[in-house]
Amino acid sequence: MSVNALRIDAGRLQSRIESLGSIGAIEGGGVCRLALSDEDRLGRERVVGWMRELGLSVSIDGIGNVVAVRAGLEAGPPVMMGSHIDTVRTGGRYDGNLGVLAGLEVMQTLADAGVVTRRPLAVAFFTNEEGARFNPDMMGSLVYVGGLALDTALATVGIDGESVGDCLRKVGFGGTAPVGHPAVHAYVELHVEQGPVLDIEGVTIGAVEGVQGISWTEFTVTGVSNHAGTTPMRLRHDAGYVACAIAQRAREIARELGGDQVATVGALSLSPNLVNVIANKAVFTVDLRNTDEILLQEAERQLHAFAAEVAQAEGVTLTHRTLARFEPVAFDPAVVRLVEETARQLGHSVRRMPSGAGHDAQMLARVCPAGMIFVPSVGGISHNVKEFTQPADIEAGANVLLQTILRLAA
Amino acid sequence: MSVNALRIDAGRLQSRIESLGSIGAIEGGGVCRLALSDEDRLGRERVVGWMRELGLSVSIDGIGNVVAVRAGLEAGPPVMMGSHIDTVRTGGRYDGNLGVLAGLEVMQTLADAGVVTRRPLAVAFFTNEEGARFNPDMMGSLVYVGGLALDTALATVGIDGESVGDCLRKVGFGGTAPVGHPAVHAYVELHVEQGPVLDIEGVTIGAVEGVQGISWTEFTVTGVSNHAGTTPMRLRHDAGYVACAIAQRAREIARELGGDQVATVGALSLSPNLVNVIANKAVFTVDLRNTDEILLQEAERQLHAFAAEVAQAEGVTLTHRTLARFEPVAFDPAVVRLVEETARQLGHSVRRMPSGAGHDAQMLARVCPAGMIFVPSVGGISHNVKEFTQPADIEAGANVLLQTILRLAA
Repeated sequence: MSVNALRIDAGRLQSRIESLGSIGAIEGGGVCRLALSDEDRLGRERVVGWMRELGLSVSIDGIGNVVAVRAGLEAGPPVMMGSHIDTVRTGGRYDGNLGVLAGLEVMQTLADAGVVTRRPLAVAFFTNEEGARFNPDMMGSLVYVGGLALDTALATVGIDGESVGDCLRKVGFGGTAPVGHPAVHAYVELHVEQGPVLDIEGVTIGAVEGVQGISWTEFTVTGVSNHAGTTPMRLRHDAGYVACAIAQRAREIARELGGDQVATVGALSLSPNLVNVIANKAVFTVDLRNTDEILLQEAERQLHAFAAEVAQAEGVTLTHRTLARFEPVAFDPAVVRLVEETARQLGHSVRRMPSGAGHDAQMLARVCPAGMIFVPSVGGISHNVKEFTQPADIEAGANVLLQTILRLAA
Repeated sequence: MSVNALRIDAGRLQSRIESLGSIGAIEGGGVCRLALSDEDRLGRERVVGWMRELGLSVSIDGIGNVVAVRAGLEAGPPVMMGSHIDTVRTGGRYDGNLGVLAGLEVMQTLADAGVVTRRPLAVAFFTNEEGARFNPDMMGSLVYVGGLALDTALATVGIDGESVGDCLRKVGFGGTAPVGHPAVHAYVELHVEQGPVLDIEGVTIGAVEGVQGISWTEFTVTGVSNHAGTTPMRLRHDAGYVACAIAQRAREIARELGGDQVATVGALSLSPNLVNVIANKAVFTVDLRNTDEILLQEAERQLHAFAAEVAQAEGVTLTHRTLARFEPVAFDPAVVRLVEETARQLGHSVRRMPSGAGHDAQMLARVCPAGMIFVPSVGGISHNVKEFTQPADIEAGANVLLQTILRLAA
């Protein structure tokens, strides 16, 4: 049998998803396994147990990243699959877990078929991807690629006052492997989309071209409170008007730039927030994202230019601060093309798309060719106990992962 | 001496303003005399004392309105001056009080000069104009003109659980005069503007043409919460966007209709109000006012048409409820013209203008020719301990009141 005909065992993969999902299970079908909690420890132990059952060589580094390697015909850096198994407080069963368990399933499929690839293979899970307990998110993969010093990461204190280092010791996952080893030949991460695009369009596979850059700005507008009846329009310094005008402009900018540009005003508060008093203060946020850094900067430029203009015209003062700013990440074009072609060859509908959320793959992209495979999230729901991906889509995604990895490792 | 040369005594008027302002005085120079409170009783007693000192014939009706009449050469309905002496919880010394005390000052000026007018004159203060303790505001004058049954008004329970009737008995101001008597030949109320127009424009006298109609609407937009990164613009149902779009449209409508039209979105709340989550709910208010009922209806029509359109385009549901709706009041054109001409003849700058707030004069306008004289409020500040009107402006306003009344009573 040609390796091209190899397919994963969907039932086995599902049963591992259910098994891991039973650890830290919460009402409604969801999971709570905050990074380095007791539940995370139990989840880690179960996955490491499976890795060892498959005869993989398991190493744990100083930040608790776990890498399981399967030897190839040749030595050298492995082709790596992976993701994370920590969750947010009310998370789903698929986010992160799918990428790790599908990687295990690929390993077992190859073992069952007696296939040994030319390059070694690895499946990894990285510590504290969610950032729900410790800042920053994607911490383990960031340390892995040298973007954050191990000592700094270990000293990080979480929302409950405990440090990463102390928690690693408690859960027994502070390992001795040097961080960043093994070096990686290529990295592919299967993940649920966490957005609605594939589900709404009825497309099975997303070939992820990159991760959006993020620009979060908080604006504070200070105007003058006055009577809504006795103050003519021309004499107003209305902080609420200026806030709404900038929010509208953010939407317009997203429409005008098109492509992957998104813009969201999700938080907006007025003071004194009364029906008949002109607001003297408005605080609101603008979330801009684009996969193209130049366009993201253009969106920021247009937004700030308009904000300054409307504030001056209304006679209010405007201040802003950056809450977050990350440049976009572009995945390796060859890996993106390979995912796309592999999906098509397996008979699946496929589209190129950006990721609107951050993933470990964007960290690995700093040190090797990397890419991602998305499968649909029903209703676009994620970070929610209702997160769900159809079994057929999980099977399709895992098979695309298998065949993509085989080609990268050949 | 011609009556045209008569002028009020500014020092005497100021000393009465200070005397009345000392009752219920609060920190910062303000006053707290909620309707029918102990402080209001003390204020009423002081003003009635002054009325009696001036030899006026004082009557108190069933809702506690006090009318002091000075006989004319002929019998018949008096030309009335007046306003109110109750205040909001953190009120100023001028709002209401000025109109009553200037009316007393007019009476004393005529008495000192030995002038008896052809028609009788009256000065009145009406119960619970502010509505800060009992609903509705302008209660006393509304009862006076037959717009609210006395029994209904007496049964009204205030914010502290006491009824108007009980409070009137307690303060000793439930009188026996029939409501609505005496009938009024014409009514003129001097009042501080409570807005910034005269102050900013450096104009001394406002000849008030009418009181704005008020339309308050609360809108609730229900959309769908989604990830601000992973949800493309075309798939959004963003309640926050729709709210801001309607707020912008309200401003545009005010600009396009021009004239006296004002529009304010003073209250706006989003849910869940997070930087990276598209809002699934927005609740906000739109305050529209115009002196012209037809134009006010046009503003409402345009607002609702746009709201329905943008809600449909975004795929959100929109509901609304009316929080308040009052038609505009137009003052008698002859009285407005008389105020304007009198101010000009006395050498004061004058402009016609609407009132953005409600006043007792709008109730009296139902039963007789009525008008108002505005003087500047420094900084447009009112319902605030910092409310202030320059002594020179008070003197100017009281002299315009005197000369206007003399002409109406001639």
